[in-house]
Amino acid sequence: MTFKARDAGFQARVRSSFAKQAAMRTIGAEIVHVAPGEVDLRLPFREELTQQHGFMHAGIIGAVADSACGYAAYTLMPAEAAVLSVEYKLNLMAPAAGEAFIARGRVKRAGRTLTVCTADVFALKGGEERLIATMTGTMMAVTDRGLSG
Amino acid sequence: MTFKARDAGFQARVRSSFAKQAAMRTIGAEIVHVAPGEVDLRLPFREELTQQHGFMHAGIIGAVADSACGYAAYTLMPAEAAVLSVEYKLNLMAPAAGEAFIARGRVKRAGRTLTVCTADVFALKGGEERLIATMTGTMMAVTDRGLSG
Amino acid sequence: MTFKARDAGFQARVRSSFAKQAAMRTIGAEIVHVAPGEVDLRLPFREELTQQHGFMHAGIIGAVADSACGYAAYTLMPAEAAVLSVEYKLNLMAPAAGEAFIARGRVKRAGRTLTVCTADVFALKGGEERLIATMTGTMMAVTDRGLSG
Amino acid sequence: MTFKARDAGFQARVRSSFAKQAAMRTIGAEIVHVAPGEVDLRLPFREELTQQHGFMHAGIIGAVADSACGYAAYTLMPAEAAVLSVEYKLNLMAPAAGEAFIARGRVKRAGRTLTVCTADVFALKGGEERLIATMTGTMMAVTDRGLSG
Repeated sequence: MTFKARDAGFQARVRSSFAKQAAMRTIGAEIVHVAPGEVDLRLPFREELTQQHGFMHAGIIGAVADSACGYAAYTLMPAEAAVLSVEYKLNLMAPAAGEAFIARGRVKRAGRTLTVCTADVFALKGGEERLIATMTGTMMAVTDRGLSG
Repeated sequence: MTFKARDAGFQARVRSSFAKQAAMRTIGAEIVHVAPGEVDLRLPFREELTQQHGFMHAGIIGAVADSACGYAAYTLMPAEAAVLSVEYKLNLMAPAAGEAFIARGRVKRAGRTLTVCTADVFALKGGEERLIATMTGTMMAVTDRGLSG
Repeated sequence: MTFKARDAGFQARVRSSFAKQAAMRTIGAEIVHVAPGEVDLRLPFREELTQQHGFMHAGIIGAVADSACGYAAYTLMPAEAAVLSVEYKLNLMAPAAGEAFIARGRVKRAGRTLTVCTADVFALKGGEERLIATMTGTMMAVTDRGLSG
Repeated sequence: MTFKARDAGFQARVRSSFAKQAAMRTIGAEIVHVAPGEVDLRLPFREELTQQHGFMHAGIIGAVADSACGYAAYTLMPAEAAVLSVEYKLNLMAPAAGEAFIARGRVKRAGRTLTVCTADVFALKGGEERLIATMTGTMMAVTDRGLSG
């Protein structure tokens, strides 16, 4: 699907808001792609974010996918809106093992209030990408709660 | 619903496995309740886990709820099983603002292979609890992949 | 949770709207309980709504649970609103075998625009109830699209 | 994604099982495409399957999407397996208005026991397709419960 951003400054707006997500900084995620309706985040493997078998924790994978979805939605929102997650669902398809992980957030349908996004998450290992998880989420544009960014 | 653990050592088994979840240690979550089919986790508010508006990141709330679900399921599994998340869905109902958060994982239906759990997440503020999120997840007992704990 | 309906005429409004759901009439579902934040629907077993093994089709169970959620949300909406399903998730926990099925829709959190509901679905057999499925859904109050009821 | 069916007779097996889904016959759905990991179902608009505003009921759309997912998964299962829905989530993106609807079930990841599928549902109107809903579901291969087809 191809989308057109209504706010020409969406790139800077997304990057500036993402930079305020302390949680993403703490876990080490960074933005590697921003386009209208699209945001990719990259998360390096980190020992301190694993679950009991040494794989990355499913919840951490979910957190990165949630941010990828939220910012994909945010690329298409008006400049004055804030974005909030209404709900998301994550299916885990393979253990989160690898050197790094890429969550590719994509808008599936952009509405005035609600935007539906998906994020496929891939593990990178030895130059190969493997699909390990997939999310579908609903994101909300909020303009009247005194939130910004 | 009332469940009976088939492994008398489920308490120690759950706590020992949880202690191996580096991700939970990193974000500061701890177990505050374990019973057959029930696990509660407590997460203090932490500046470094917030999203762009200063609330706890929805993905971090999801990570704690996922662990609460997984370990609630794990209380009922046989001693030799490992637990993996198949999928989970999180609805966010209010901003994650508060001094701490409690995720109450509860088994809804325990099957031989798959267990369905819910987790309500509450924000604690000034001695009051407020429901901020709810998860339903599917957890899987795995016995043949060389995983333990 | 206890809710108070803001529209005193919610009972009649819910029943009148439900009566317009041709799909519910076609599959044979009827309302058996309406209270603020609560709607129960009853669906008799019907051979013509089964899947390939003779159980009721998971999608039909989902349809009844979706209506139970939607009308539970609708009990709390203002008189002039219409209700639409934003999304729902259904976990199937046991085969849908029985003489009839009850879907108990309950509001978990009522917001101005979005309402989160759950619906547990029970199979009735020989006087006993057995939990077979559980739904969490997001319902939306719409007031500006020319929809009514 | 490209998949290879392990059972050469998957086409006949899928069609024969689908023919046993009385629910699909009752609502008027038919198979219009079967390939490894892919099943498309077509549902004509029917007045008797509408909700209160005259659109097709979200639960009926969900039922067709669930069958599309289940049979997409079933194409890749061994001949002796039966398929059951573990869970599914449906996001509704536009009112289900149109002359007919196509649910395109696609396998995202096929496992030994669990298969993750998606189904996009499109409304057909005046020769155009419009995306109205999207599902992600988990399907299970069952070989030990005396179920067949």
